[in-house]
Amino acid sequence: MSGGKLKVAIVGSTGYGGVELIRFLLGHPMVEIASVISSSSEGVPIAEGFPHLTEIMTQNLDGVDPQAIAEKADVVFTATPSGVSGKLVPELLAAGLKVIDLSGDFRIKDGSVYEAWYKHEAPDAKLLEQAVYGLCELHGEDVKGADFISNPGCYPTATLLGLIPALKAGWIDPKTIIIDAKSGVSGAGRGVSLTNHFAEINENLKVYKVNKHQHIPEVEQCLSQVAGEPVTVTFTAHLTPMTRGIMSTMYASLKGAYTEEDLIRLYREYYGGRKFVRIREAGKWPATKEVFGSNYCDIGFAVDPRTGRLTIISVIDNVVKGAAGQAIQNLNLMMGWDETTGLMLSPVYP
Amino acid sequence: MSGGKLKVAIVGSTGYGGVELIRFLLGHPMVEIASVISSSSEGVPIAEGFPHLTEIMTQNLDGVDPQAIAEKADVVFTATPSGVSGKLVPELLAAGLKVIDLSGDFRIKDGSVYEAWYKHEAPDAKLLEQAVYGLCELHGEDVKGADFISNPGCYPTATLLGLIPALKAGWIDPKTIIIDAKSGVSGAGRGVSLTNHFAEINENLKVYKVNKHQHIPEVEQCLSQVAGEPVTVTFTAHLTPMTRGIMSTMYASLKGAYTEEDLIRLYREYYGGRKFVRIREAGKWPATKEVFGSNYCDIGFAVDPRTGRLTIISVIDNVVKGAAGQAIQNLNLMMGWDETTGLMLSPVYP
Amino acid sequence: MSGGKLKVAIVGSTGYGGVELIRFLLGHPMVEIASVISSSSEGVPIAEGFPHLTEIMTQNLDGVDPQAIAEKADVVFTATPSGVSGKLVPELLAAGLKVIDLSGDFRIKDGSVYEAWYKHEAPDAKLLEQAVYGLCELHGEDVKGADFISNPGCYPTATLLGLIPALKAGWIDPKTIIIDAKSGVSGAGRGVSLTNHFAEINENLKVYKVNKHQHIPEVEQCLSQVAGEPVTVTFTAHLTPMTRGIMSTMYASLKGAYTEEDLIRLYREYYGGRKFVRIREAGKWPATKEVFGSNYCDIGFAVDPRTGRLTIISVIDNVVKGAAGQAIQNLNLMMGWDETTGLMLSPVYP
Amino acid sequence: MSGGKLKVAIVGSTGYGGVELIRFLLGHPMVEIASVISSSSEGVPIAEGFPHLTEIMTQNLDGVDPQAIAEKADVVFTATPSGVSGKLVPELLAAGLKVIDLSGDFRIKDGSVYEAWYKHEAPDAKLLEQAVYGLCELHGEDVKGADFISNPGCYPTATLLGLIPALKAGWIDPKTIIIDAKSGVSGAGRGVSLTNHFAEINENLKVYKVNKHQHIPEVEQCLSQVAGEPVTVTFTAHLTPMTRGIMSTMYASLKGAYTEEDLIRLYREYYGGRKFVRIREAGKWPATKEVFGSNYCDIGFAVDPRTGRLTIISVIDNVVKGAAGQAIQNLNLMMGWDETTGLMLSPVYP
Repeated sequence: MSGGKLKVAIVGSTGYGGVELIRFLLGHPMVEIASVISSSSEGVPIAEGFPHLTEIMTQNLDGVDPQAIAEKADVVFTATPSGVSGKLVPELLAAGLKVIDLSGDFRIKDGSVYEAWYKHEAPDAKLLEQAVYGLCELHGEDVKGADFISNPGCYPTATLLGLIPALKAGWIDPKTIIIDAKSGVSGAGRGVSLTNHFAEINENLKVYKVNKHQHIPEVEQCLSQVAGEPVTVTFTAHLTPMTRGIMSTMYASLKGAYTEEDLIRLYREYYGGRKFVRIREAGKWPATKEVFGSNYCDIGFAVDPRTGRLTIISVIDNVVKGAAGQAIQNLNLMMGWDETTGLMLSPVYP
Repeated sequence: MSGGKLKVAIVGSTGYGGVELIRFLLGHPMVEIASVISSSSEGVPIAEGFPHLTEIMTQNLDGVDPQAIAEKADVVFTATPSGVSGKLVPELLAAGLKVIDLSGDFRIKDGSVYEAWYKHEAPDAKLLEQAVYGLCELHGEDVKGADFISNPGCYPTATLLGLIPALKAGWIDPKTIIIDAKSGVSGAGRGVSLTNHFAEINENLKVYKVNKHQHIPEVEQCLSQVAGEPVTVTFTAHLTPMTRGIMSTMYASLKGAYTEEDLIRLYREYYGGRKFVRIREAGKWPATKEVFGSNYCDIGFAVDPRTGRLTIISVIDNVVKGAAGQAIQNLNLMMGWDETTGLMLSPVYP
Repeated sequence: MSGGKLKVAIVGSTGYGGVELIRFLLGHPMVEIASVISSSSEGVPIAEGFPHLTEIMTQNLDGVDPQAIAEKADVVFTATPSGVSGKLVPELLAAGLKVIDLSGDFRIKDGSVYEAWYKHEAPDAKLLEQAVYGLCELHGEDVKGADFISNPGCYPTATLLGLIPALKAGWIDPKTIIIDAKSGVSGAGRGVSLTNHFAEINENLKVYKVNKHQHIPEVEQCLSQVAGEPVTVTFTAHLTPMTRGIMSTMYASLKGAYTEEDLIRLYREYYGGRKFVRIREAGKWPATKEVFGSNYCDIGFAVDPRTGRLTIISVIDNVVKGAAGQAIQNLNLMMGWDETTGLMLSPVYP
Repeated sequence: MSGGKLKVAIVGSTGYGGVELIRFLLGHPMVEIASVISSSSEGVPIAEGFPHLTEIMTQNLDGVDPQAIAEKADVVFTATPSGVSGKLVPELLAAGLKVIDLSGDFRIKDGSVYEAWYKHEAPDAKLLEQAVYGLCELHGEDVKGADFISNPGCYPTATLLGLIPALKAGWIDPKTIIIDAKSGVSGAGRGVSLTNHFAEINENLKVYKVNKHQHIPEVEQCLSQVAGEPVTVTFTAHLTPMTRGIMSTMYASLKGAYTEEDLIRLYREYYGGRKFVRIREAGKWPATKEVFGSNYCDIGFAVDPRTGRLTIISVIDNVVKGAAGQAIQNLNLMMGWDETTGLMLSPVYP
């Protein structure tokens, strides 16, 4: 740290996660962006690929060189694809950098589980152990002072924040959890494919990777820890015709005659004092647009006395609380700052 | 019937259901549109409110007068709001017309159940009994020769076609059915409200009427008949930022080790010879755009051996198979014509 | 022709133009689709890449082999990219096929102009001369009996139909024509690129190829013929966040005190009896959705007495009247059939 | 001003302009929101109608009472409809408040012109004279120290910033100006109407009020001042299927052989030092998404040597630079603060 500000670097600055880190870090009072890095566009002005940054970011993109990064920065965000981070992060750590990794490569503690779902080789077991899984509202204490954070996935963030208090309290039956998750298209990144083609997505609603999504073991790992027993979930991913936003609609059988008011009280108490989780009143449920562009996770409930089931609706902006925002929240916690620093932007509405 | 063609009238021609009836009936070889009717716009050319019909439909809208309708037409479609149909249909029947009603007023056989969910008075019990619930692929035989059809709702159509074969075969546990349903905005009709405002819907995903939607008793009534026992479901309605399309993602516990191939075989056999239900191959699931503008209902499956649950994905165009298209299919069955007459339009893609 | 139906083949069946040809030809009473062809997906069922055609089209895609095509079909549509058609069409003609080409390769009569705008080599001059430019409402007589049609571009179709009657009548000054054109994304085809990525297009409005679009010489060639003098236009292409639709907003100085009513009369007379051009009443202008999925071109006017300028608004569905629909209209004219055969589908609304 | 912060009130806090003022003012270091006001929802928590503000704004809405406002605040923003402001503003000024009015009521200096375009009675002539038209980059000096600002319209802001430097330099012929303007739907406000219905707007592109839009006299008034002669323009408003964003595509004949580089130099010099106008490089043009959620106005050029015409593309976010953002920029100038205070949010992308 020099000149009073922490110097950070961003690997993967030409992806949606990277560019959103830039948007928030530009307004972060304690941080200076020392280097924006892209393996594919070294030397190119970042504003060339992202004209919205014209005159805002005048830097050129740097190449991926761990030593050079370590000379410029103290902390590095790796907003790189799964598979890439697994190889790059060890080098960055070795170069003395603190790392906040936004890929999925270090989220699954058991390498064999990782390999079963991600279909490529797991990183070194010691590194997997070292990585602190940074779901801030749950693991904030572990993040403080850590050097290496594995930032949660977008679906897991919405899902886990919605399920954990009820599960921890023993109010829902862990064997009955069904997660019907819906995402905007930015979640799939900026890489081009027929799946992202406007004419294929617009006025369309799809499911994909039913029961096969690589975020499933991440959700189950965390739920199992909370429940103290192995939890297996049914999980469907949907692609919706919007750019940002995740909604996780979750179902579970209640283990008692809890009311919506009970749940609201339980959740408000659990998240008490944490700014980024907002619990809706009884009879109201959040919509994705109500968190657009912000780091909030909004949660609502419906209890159906006819079936004894609880429905939980949890929404986030996948690019913010599901990626860049939570990564900065982790940075704040890591550095001992207020977790909201630089993140208190109101949602953009409409 | 005169001049070789059946004369039909459409009450509610200024709504989305009514105007879609027109689109299909214009190409129906056995039918002539004798009168387009609107309580609010009598005397106005229909193309004034719907300029896409310029030079295609040159008629003026007629007022709602059962006797006058009966003089012009043999069959009348009532694409009127719930509450309106309940009062109008008895007069139309009394005037000697055959009626296909697209509202929800005659779908629930038990008037007290109707009143609990719809929040207004139920129609006369005798009429409720007389109305044939026209889910064509299930009740086709009952529709033949009937004079009064109650056309199914959009959510129930997608949901029931997706659930019935597995339920009837006893492969799923009726106590475990969860329905996560998503609809485009046209399902809410053409009436203006903040809920339909483009700036509130675009780039947004919402839930509404969680466990309270009036289509729930319709689904349960039909499932209970099929299962031979009372079935209660958990049902969430979502509003997605698109105009047309419904996807029903359904979950149930399997009562045996059935595979996706087993299910595909079961469903193909059940729907064998019925053109409008298409079953996807294993590992593939339908998207709403794949039925856009058409009368198809496409269904796919995922079996999760880890949880023993079945996930069924069923999609329709809510304005077609969920309203106008199925109403015409009912007309075809009623008249003894091939059920596909006038309905074999390919989906519009992209 | 055998079995009473004309046999047609479609090269480029995996693009949006190709698949729209299929949608309309499936309902065409005089035509049988004998072969669907794709250079990239030979042997694959067409419904694999286009699941909306499941059980509707069960054929596999054929490869591109002119002799084999000629054995199966009498007429071939080439919905191939510019550059590809230029090489393929001579072989198809040599094999004895009638050809309707949807690319831009044979629209520009002067090879050097073609090369200046398209940036690759022009086809043989003799073929350029042979090709009949098939703007149906203008060149219908030339199309009758022709063997080789060059189907107009999407922007030119909307633009020319909007401008020609006023220009031909000498009511507007050809030196003042400005065309502000807007297109949906399907106009760029199904090929993937960052430009088509949903997250880049949604909630976005862009200009592209300002004054450089390859449709400019096509517009100018036709306007010059009509005006009897060289016409040069200012033309801006915009990409709008929708799948289908083109709107051409056109400006020109009036050469007299013509009113909107005068223009409406002029245009209705000019297009009298042609079904696919609809002229709006004074004070009303068409929207793209009013022609969605149909072969109509709708036109409206505004005269501004303050500036002496005429504004013409012309809309089409770029995939239909701007591509596949007009190609079939050309087929109809070529074969001596009513030009509307198989094309009288109402626009899909909403 | 007390406690170091300027106290402001917002009348019309339940509209899109009002709620966007709140978003920016929440992060403004010199300002405190003392009162949020709505004539229709007095006493209701603002977060009830705008759940995205849950826990962010906990105030209830106040009623419209000029004396009460003056007791709470020093400056008031009136984000009220045209016609309402005209009556309310005199009372607010009389109560001693400084006023920044976002309606169109005080933009036109000549009351008779106002009445011809707005179709209701003009405010008092003395007030019209007193109001400073606050197009910040043009009239910044006049705004400093003023008590009553009339904030420019959305279309005029994009249009005027795009035209003024070239017009002032005498490079374009004022008789040839044509403005083809496109807006997102939020520009029409939150009031419900069929025109704003999602199913009518989605996948649709419309023109409206051709040559009749009430922003035309505002554009002409300012252009005439700059040109030193009466300027009359042709202006078409388009509604595009997106929530935010305006693009003004403008055409004019060049009075000399100016190149794109000349124009870029001219504009960069004219706007030198002003942060919120960004001029694109030659061959590049801005898209609306590149300013989404921000106060930037981005401008690009195309010179067509074939026609001697200049095309100017100017984009803003209509809710920010076209309304709330520029209003705060005016506040900053009025108070003698840096004009960028509280406004330096990066555009949200994607």
